[in-house]
Amino acid sequence: MKTNKNIQNFIGCDKEYEEADIVLFGAPYDGTTSYRPGTRFAAKAMRMESSLGFETYSPYQDKDLTQISVFDHGDLVLPYGGPEQILDIISDFTRDVIKDNKIPIMIGGEHLVTLGTIRPIVEKYPDLHIIHFDAHTDLRHEFFDKELSHATVMRRVWDLVGDGKIFQMGIRSGDKTEFEWAKEHLYQNKYNCNDIDYIIEKTKGKPVYVTIDLDVLDPSVFPGTGTPEPGGIDFTTLLNCILKMSELNIVGADINELSPHYDPSGASTAVAIKTLRELLLVL
Amino acid sequence: MKTNKNIQNFIGCDKEYEEADIVLFGAPYDGTTSYRPGTRFAAKAMRMESSLGFETYSPYQDKDLTQISVFDHGDLVLPYGGPEQILDIISDFTRDVIKDNKIPIMIGGEHLVTLGTIRPIVEKYPDLHIIHFDAHTDLRHEFFDKELSHATVMRRVWDLVGDGKIFQMGIRSGDKTEFEWAKEHLYQNKYNCNDIDYIIEKTKGKPVYVTIDLDVLDPSVFPGTGTPEPGGIDFTTLLNCILKMSELNIVGADINELSPHYDPSGASTAVAIKTLRELLLVL
Amino acid sequence: MKTNKNIQNFIGCDKEYEEADIVLFGAPYDGTTSYRPGTRFAAKAMRMESSLGFETYSPYQDKDLTQISVFDHGDLVLPYGGPEQILDIISDFTRDVIKDNKIPIMIGGEHLVTLGTIRPIVEKYPDLHIIHFDAHTDLRHEFFDKELSHATVMRRVWDLVGDGKIFQMGIRSGDKTEFEWAKEHLYQNKYNCNDIDYIIEKTKGKPVYVTIDLDVLDPSVFPGTGTPEPGGIDFTTLLNCILKMSELNIVGADINELSPHYDPSGASTAVAIKTLRELLLVL
Amino acid sequence: MKTNKNIQNFIGCDKEYEEADIVLFGAPYDGTTSYRPGTRFAAKAMRMESSLGFETYSPYQDKDLTQISVFDHGDLVLPYGGPEQILDIISDFTRDVIKDNKIPIMIGGEHLVTLGTIRPIVEKYPDLHIIHFDAHTDLRHEFFDKELSHATVMRRVWDLVGDGKIFQMGIRSGDKTEFEWAKEHLYQNKYNCNDIDYIIEKTKGKPVYVTIDLDVLDPSVFPGTGTPEPGGIDFTTLLNCILKMSELNIVGADINELSPHYDPSGASTAVAIKTLRELLLVL
Amino acid sequence: MKTNKNIQNFIGCDKEYEEADIVLFGAPYDGTTSYRPGTRFAAKAMRMESSLGFETYSPYQDKDLTQISVFDHGDLVLPYGGPEQILDIISDFTRDVIKDNKIPIMIGGEHLVTLGTIRPIVEKYPDLHIIHFDAHTDLRHEFFDKELSHATVMRRVWDLVGDGKIFQMGIRSGDKTEFEWAKEHLYQNKYNCNDIDYIIEKTKGKPVYVTIDLDVLDPSVFPGTGTPEPGGIDFTTLLNCILKMSELNIVGADINELSPHYDPSGASTAVAIKTLRELLLVL
Amino acid sequence: MKTNKNIQNFIGCDKEYEEADIVLFGAPYDGTTSYRPGTRFAAKAMRMESSLGFETYSPYQDKDLTQISVFDHGDLVLPYGGPEQILDIISDFTRDVIKDNKIPIMIGGEHLVTLGTIRPIVEKYPDLHIIHFDAHTDLRHEFFDKELSHATVMRRVWDLVGDGKIFQMGIRSGDKTEFEWAKEHLYQNKYNCNDIDYIIEKTKGKPVYVTIDLDVLDPSVFPGTGTPEPGGIDFTTLLNCILKMSELNIVGADINELSPHYDPSGASTAVAIKTLRELLLVL
Repeated sequence: MKTNKNIQNFIGCDKEYEEADIVLFGAPYDGTTSYRPGTRFAAKAMRMESSLGFETYSPYQDKDLTQISVFDHGDLVLPYGGPEQILDIISDFTRDVIKDNKIPIMIGGEHLVTLGTIRPIVEKYPDLHIIHFDAHTDLRHEFFDKELSHATVMRRVWDLVGDGKIFQMGIRSGDKTEFEWAKEHLYQNKYNCNDIDYIIEKTKGKPVYVTIDLDVLDPSVFPGTGTPEPGGIDFTTLLNCILKMSELNIVGADINELSPHYDPSGASTAVAIKTLRELLLVL
Repeated sequence: MKTNKNIQNFIGCDKEYEEADIVLFGAPYDGTTSYRPGTRFAAKAMRMESSLGFETYSPYQDKDLTQISVFDHGDLVLPYGGPEQILDIISDFTRDVIKDNKIPIMIGGEHLVTLGTIRPIVEKYPDLHIIHFDAHTDLRHEFFDKELSHATVMRRVWDLVGDGKIFQMGIRSGDKTEFEWAKEHLYQNKYNCNDIDYIIEKTKGKPVYVTIDLDVLDPSVFPGTGTPEPGGIDFTTLLNCILKMSELNIVGADINELSPHYDPSGASTAVAIKTLRELLLVL
Repeated sequence: MKTNKNIQNFIGCDKEYEEADIVLFGAPYDGTTSYRPGTRFAAKAMRMESSLGFETYSPYQDKDLTQISVFDHGDLVLPYGGPEQILDIISDFTRDVIKDNKIPIMIGGEHLVTLGTIRPIVEKYPDLHIIHFDAHTDLRHEFFDKELSHATVMRRVWDLVGDGKIFQMGIRSGDKTEFEWAKEHLYQNKYNCNDIDYIIEKTKGKPVYVTIDLDVLDPSVFPGTGTPEPGGIDFTTLLNCILKMSELNIVGADINELSPHYDPSGASTAVAIKTLRELLLVL
Repeated sequence: MKTNKNIQNFIGCDKEYEEADIVLFGAPYDGTTSYRPGTRFAAKAMRMESSLGFETYSPYQDKDLTQISVFDHGDLVLPYGGPEQILDIISDFTRDVIKDNKIPIMIGGEHLVTLGTIRPIVEKYPDLHIIHFDAHTDLRHEFFDKELSHATVMRRVWDLVGDGKIFQMGIRSGDKTEFEWAKEHLYQNKYNCNDIDYIIEKTKGKPVYVTIDLDVLDPSVFPGTGTPEPGGIDFTTLLNCILKMSELNIVGADINELSPHYDPSGASTAVAIKTLRELLLVL
Repeated sequence: MKTNKNIQNFIGCDKEYEEADIVLFGAPYDGTTSYRPGTRFAAKAMRMESSLGFETYSPYQDKDLTQISVFDHGDLVLPYGGPEQILDIISDFTRDVIKDNKIPIMIGGEHLVTLGTIRPIVEKYPDLHIIHFDAHTDLRHEFFDKELSHATVMRRVWDLVGDGKIFQMGIRSGDKTEFEWAKEHLYQNKYNCNDIDYIIEKTKGKPVYVTIDLDVLDPSVFPGTGTPEPGGIDFTTLLNCILKMSELNIVGADINELSPHYDPSGASTAVAIKTLRELLLVL
Repeated sequence: MKTNKNIQNFIGCDKEYEEADIVLFGAPYDGTTSYRPGTRFAAKAMRMESSLGFETYSPYQDKDLTQISVFDHGDLVLPYGGPEQILDIISDFTRDVIKDNKIPIMIGGEHLVTLGTIRPIVEKYPDLHIIHFDAHTDLRHEFFDKELSHATVMRRVWDLVGDGKIFQMGIRSGDKTEFEWAKEHLYQNKYNCNDIDYIIEKTKGKPVYVTIDLDVLDPSVFPGTGTPEPGGIDFTTLLNCILKMSELNIVGADINELSPHYDPSGASTAVAIKTLRELLLVL
């Protein structure tokens, strides 16, 4: 008779911390979400549903999650309220992970949490390049007078990495000033992901962080999100981009903005689970 | 301290009537809907949600709703019951708008409301051409013995404009007699919108009315509608058609058949909002 | 033809600010909500739905909202993030309202917003008494190391009014220390509202603030809330308490914790609307 | 091998027309519904769900639907649009049923359909008494300038039966004029059903028609309806009233205002099914 | 930095097996469910939601889950298909638990799983008495020609314990033969729980197993279940029965029939969580 | 006055058994479903919804369901529990249908039901070829130690037809051993349906059985299913495959895995209805 406590991890990610190459963790924060909150539930929903109905094997990559070494830490404990403290907790955790030479993979939360992981990673890899999938530019300097927000996160990342390091894909929403600012400071592939080969070429050999705001997908594919934005890419396009990134040196990644309660069909959670599986296997 | 009453308009459409070029209004009628009613809630849902989570700026057109002049009148007050009286109210309102040389844009309601706007517009522009996006032909002569119905509306429009003036796109449902009748009286682009360039060419320089039954979109994109019909176009296709219509002389338009309660994810309302934004900006 | 902008107010609350005795406003904040967020949508949902399907007349009181003078200001514009700034905005607004000798009635938001209204009201009425309907004590000194939280709000109110001024009803959840602390500092009617007559007697003639956390109702009656707590009162019990408060000198009030997206049936929103109508009419 | 077509009836109501004492039929009309439409789906949902998960036996009455003789005709075919024609179809059908000395039981639809059944029944039984369960008075003389509406139906019934024949129970919504008019023309048991014994006494021996607008139930019990009105009775109260009516001479009945799509849990449909079972067994 | 795997237990039930007095486990089986399946998700949903938004402290009992010793084993791994094998797995697990002198508490699943726990418990306690809360008799001898079914489970339990040992409460559905059979073989409190004191008196001092089919609650309180049956008890009634059972010698218990997907509001899951908390604390 | 019982058939399928060329029936079984159950409701939902809002005419094929001869038998009565007995009932029914030289078309239920129809059909047509649309290989030899399961069904079919007879399309999920086994025993078109022409060519002139697991569609198109698997085909792709099969000698077919309760928008049911219409018309 099994007398161990009940473990709940993302499917196939059942290794011990010491033996793991990859550390998966959740950052259940949605405190600056301006439209529909709820991404706090994403990582928990993904762990539960993945263990109920998903395969560990990817026919696309002919690899299996049980063959790689992933430790699932569960969710960080995050207080409610202003974002500064949350970002520090995420940064501290990430710093510990990379100190142990493991790759951190985070499940958001809203997109602001990405700043938490990137801060320590850019300390370690000053030449960090960012591949950013999103419907929204997230390049506002301020949003409702705040510098820390889901709508400013990539601007804050730019503060850390500087010009020419950020590559955006699938962007289709923002205000005019964001789009104009982007032209001078980063690479922007609007509306689709047609420039993936060019971006792979530009980032090959560099340390790369991948941040996937799942609302890059069309709301038909991914309605369970805070700010659905019609006109996005389909799942196969996102999958193909991920598969191509197998050539890259990915030193960290996250997927974010699943708000599971807004999609009672569960399809959005399924999309997030499969995206994470392929992302883990491509590392 | 603001001591004005609470205004609720579609995002960015906050001009006074006098200064406006465009008059937006809702026609909350679904009295002849034969399958799933609820389009009466469409305009109210679009106003509320648009102000919560949508941008006024279109990167596709590099224009902003705040730069153009739109007055949002809110919903017309429509009694319940038979459609004749409703159509008269819509026609009277539209007549006043075009008398003031403003362009009327209506949010349905079911598709029958289109007859209400077109009647006065065709009085003013006898050479009116109609561009009609829809899954359904809407060309029955009668439906359940009624001449006024969502299923007969384009036949009634034809009564007003005659042969060769109606251009249908995306059509994929109807009965056999409708499809046969259509061959002789109008232009029909079945299943997709591949003929948009031809239709633009044929209508350029003419006064054009655009009516978008949002169920032209595939139910994956737009499940929140009364009569979902699989096999439709995706959002990008509809968007591209709208962008191409910037060359046209549009004298009125409507979008209809959003039934928001049937899509608890809110994605359908988001699609309707973005469609309306692009339509307003293309005028 | 009406050429005024589209006004959206709570049903029957259509007076100008100057002529109003009561000022109704929304505080769409849910930033410290620890379980299920979404109360930010409450006031907007209540305005929209009330105007679609509710009566202004109360047979219980034989009064009508159109007979009293209520100005509906709409929602305050509140930034996202930490609560201090939000509370200041609410307090400033409330201070202006009471300066003009009008009664402020707030629609939350989460329960923390109550602190925003009470701060200026207690300045004006140092002997302020509080009648508090809730499932939860809300008496923690800190919650996740924060002093400002939906779970600490009544403790913060106590900081302002002191012992013997707070009367709680319907309480059935909290931690042990809260219940023990309560015994020494306030009056607590646990599980039901049986002590309403006693509470009325104790507060008659005093300035009274009424705060109704709608989760005092059983989740069968009000599932659309952030923290459903089984074992609550039914609607008729709450209604009777409100009716009895007609004898009191109510100088401000709020209802809070409707999270409309969690009740797709709309029943919770209906309950909130009717509660607000009766509360307004009892003033 | 069964080679008959697929029959779908309300559970246990599988007798042939000729042998039946009771004729059950649906009237899928919601054309004057002013708030949330959808009662058109009620009868179909009740037939389908009843056959999937409900018992034919009532322990309350120790009777079984299979022991009594009910023919389920299915839904009437009703056109869309104005109500006059619909009422005529219902009246014609009902007239045929009572001519054959069978008792008609109708599943609405919105409440206006009741006028359709009562017109021929009052022809046959000029001394007809009406027991009416409802949240709403339904006594407006006109609603949106229409004499035929769900909000006027009991006023129209009064036109047929006159003073002192209508007994209302559970009423808690309407405008002031309706409540005042009611005082002079009918018996009204407001808020609850406490007067059921008095009403039974007053109607015993008379021909009685029972019309149950299911929104008499509290929205916690019955959220799936067009106009939820908090403060209603619970299921047991309604059940007890029905059981007491076994002493009466019921010559026709209906239940109405189930709008199944508004209650995704299915509980409202379950309530309607059990109410109908008990009503059929009490006859 | 915590480097242990992610534990997921029911809130407050975080003791090691060895130190625990109570062993909590899930039995995710719904293979004989005849109407709406989905109880397989109950235990997982209860663990997740309980840790997100519920208190460990009960003001009713002035006790806290953190003060008692409960080990949460998680869900048993159960194959799909026929019930015999599932019941054996449950029985084997339960036998091990009681061998270690710990009290087994099971979260179903459908009601048939109760047979799995009772079989070994009755071996150990031949004088076992059963207190059974339910809407349904569950006393059929066979259901669809099967002896093992959610509809026959209490008949199978009777096979083990014999006459006079089963005490049913809240029963309101079944077929006539079940009700008649019950009269001779067990004690049945129909429709409500008014006889709780009598039942406590009769079972005091005996080994007692408590099985709570949560559909004993009215569907207004608990719509998220496979077979909603209107006319049930409210939460406070169930709670009071549980509190009174503190006088009993409970040697095992279960709660079952939560089907969480059928209640999108989450209220049903909240009810199940609070019921389990009180049941654990009463032991 | 119509005095026949209420018939409920799939739209346009109203012929008598004797005159029918095609026999449509439902197999409401989901007993081995491992993730989300509910396909038992599929056929009933499709019959009801098809009659409410769908056309019998296909513009794609210029044919009408009313012109062909389909008898709709309704659902088989299937007991709950282990699958052997269910498969026998399906096989017996199918055998009777093909004995009468009619084509059986089944609506599942989960995919295992396909084994029930294929067993008698392969007796009659030993050279039977299978065209199989699915997201999942369904080729496990055992699943949870069971040989009969939705996850093993095509392996069991292979037991009957042998190598080279099964043609899979759209496959994108399974474990590694399934994909490897497939390479030696059948034809597999992974991820899309690009090889449809090749498959048509290979099966032309042979007796062909078509089994469509609707989860071959992307979850954006078809979320209402037990195991949503992102990365699937769109509706138009499936439709085009069906249209091309008009050249084949189809001797039986099924569509399965609609779980209607998981898609509250109804779009999945609409997709299933239109797929079935086109499949029936192509025969």
